[in-house]
Amino acid sequence: MGTSAGRDAEPRPADYIRRVHELDADSLLEPRGPLRFGVTVSDRWNIGAAPNGGYLAHLLLGAAARCVPQPDPFSVTTHYLGVAAPGPAEVLVEVVRRGRGHATVQTRLVQGDREMARQLAVLGDLGAVSGPTEVTAQPPRLPPERECERGRHGPTAHLAIADRLVVSMAPGAVSWMPGPDGAPRTHSDRAELSGYVRLADGREPDARSLIFFADALPPPVLNLRAVQTPWVPTLEQTVHVRARPAPGALRFVFRTRALIDGYLEEDGELWDARDRLVAMSRQLARVHRA
Amino acid sequence: MGTSAGRDAEPRPADYIRRVHELDADSLLEPRGPLRFGVTVSDRWNIGAAPNGGYLAHLLLGAAARCVPQPDPFSVTTHYLGVAAPGPAEVLVEVVRRGRGHATVQTRLVQGDREMARQLAVLGDLGAVSGPTEVTAQPPRLPPERECERGRHGPTAHLAIADRLVVSMAPGAVSWMPGPDGAPRTHSDRAELSGYVRLADGREPDARSLIFFADALPPPVLNLRAVQTPWVPTLEQTVHVRARPAPGALRFVFRTRALIDGYLEEDGELWDARDRLVAMSRQLARVHRA
Repeated sequence: MGTSAGRDAEPRPADYIRRVHELDADSLLEPRGPLRFGVTVSDRWNIGAAPNGGYLAHLLLGAAARCVPQPDPFSVTTHYLGVAAPGPAEVLVEVVRRGRGHATVQTRLVQGDREMARQLAVLGDLGAVSGPTEVTAQPPRLPPERECERGRHGPTAHLAIADRLVVSMAPGAVSWMPGPDGAPRTHSDRAELSGYVRLADGREPDARSLIFFADALPPPVLNLRAVQTPWVPTLEQTVHVRARPAPGALRFVFRTRALIDGYLEEDGELWDARDRLVAMSRQLARVHRA
Repeated sequence: MGTSAGRDAEPRPADYIRRVHELDADSLLEPRGPLRFGVTVSDRWNIGAAPNGGYLAHLLLGAAARCVPQPDPFSVTTHYLGVAAPGPAEVLVEVVRRGRGHATVQTRLVQGDREMARQLAVLGDLGAVSGPTEVTAQPPRLPPERECERGRHGPTAHLAIADRLVVSMAPGAVSWMPGPDGAPRTHSDRAELSGYVRLADGREPDARSLIFFADALPPPVLNLRAVQTPWVPTLEQTVHVRARPAPGALRFVFRTRALIDGYLEEDGELWDARDRLVAMSRQLARVHRA
């Protein structure tokens, strides 16, 4: 896939299809220098015409992790500066600090001469950390995954990203999905969504993919009557990865407690199948005027 | 004050004392080029031998705001890369994006040849935003300020920053302060602190100073029995400023819900005297081993 490996070492197509999942195939980096990678932004994670921010953040994080020995994200802040387009792009990396425990890395997604996103990340080794543990946060209360509602990803027409994910929402969480009788729901005035999420092709979650999951679900603010547009662009998102997730569906809860003059925070938690809090996220977004 | 203003225009000492408050005096920037400022890091905001992170973040934000027309912080992420020292430093600014509504600015605090902190901020105009408003977050329930507890800023010896702030903690919130009978408190096992905070010299809060206040209070994780050290260095902090605060004391609540393997998130809210949520903060910090 554009690496310097010889032809003989390339997997055959059938092997390749089995081994490389969509998220990994669409985050492949082609080294073009010590701190520069070429990449093809896929349209398979689109929301409308634009690639999902979580997908882009995951892609940038992959480049950061290639440039330092620390494998895991600890804190990842991504600023979205422009609307990226599917197609060729470059990732430019700056290693800001190389520490023994942590490294700090900045990455930039560039298309043409425009910087579309900038990420500042602390990486470390989640397998090597030790210290006191005391967790009072509780996982979201959910019925079993099979009793949750599969359905439209957002209150809009077809979204490519919806084909990449299996999302099972807590019953009644989503106000834009019709009820069991097919009647349209009224708005719930509760900007909170919870449920289960998996990648559709069976790829299990890992620490890095949590950066994707933290921005892959529809915004809970869409539940509110006051919000008339499905377009809620993210200005900035920060994700703290707290543990490597176990295999299986992730449970999520995302909520907005303060929509003020069109700006909102969105707080998220991701819990793994072993009841561990694996990521916390917060973003600042804006309700686009209809 | 190191600016290019002529001697005749300098305020007399008495005027100066009345007009310039400590936080502003200690955040003065001396232009040394279009995107470069000299600064003297003060020891008046120290925690032990190191300047408080909130003070440094406020200082960096001041430099960012000097380089773009947008006056207010919207989202400010600061990474702490080394332990800064009181004394001379430089702030280097990069304007990442100049938009009509928002600007994105990166600043770096450099001492000698070491980068001590890096900040990535979105700035805008909080006076010009409009859109739907719906807030379900509630201000902390507190008794009147005069009924709260003034006392030690942290469970350690003298801290310079404690002289700069008037902190009134909710009764019983702080487990390291002796009770009314002078008996030492037991640890509360509740990593939450709330109360009122003001600057001691009477300076009123403004949008930029919220970045300082969001990292100026003692960490609530110190309440926990499991935490044996007062040193909880911040790796990364992000603050969303949601409104310009009204004059008067700020009410705060800071809490940690997940201390995992020595790493913790700390979530904060700042509310103004008019019951408005003016800032939300989250940091990733680490309990230093004793």
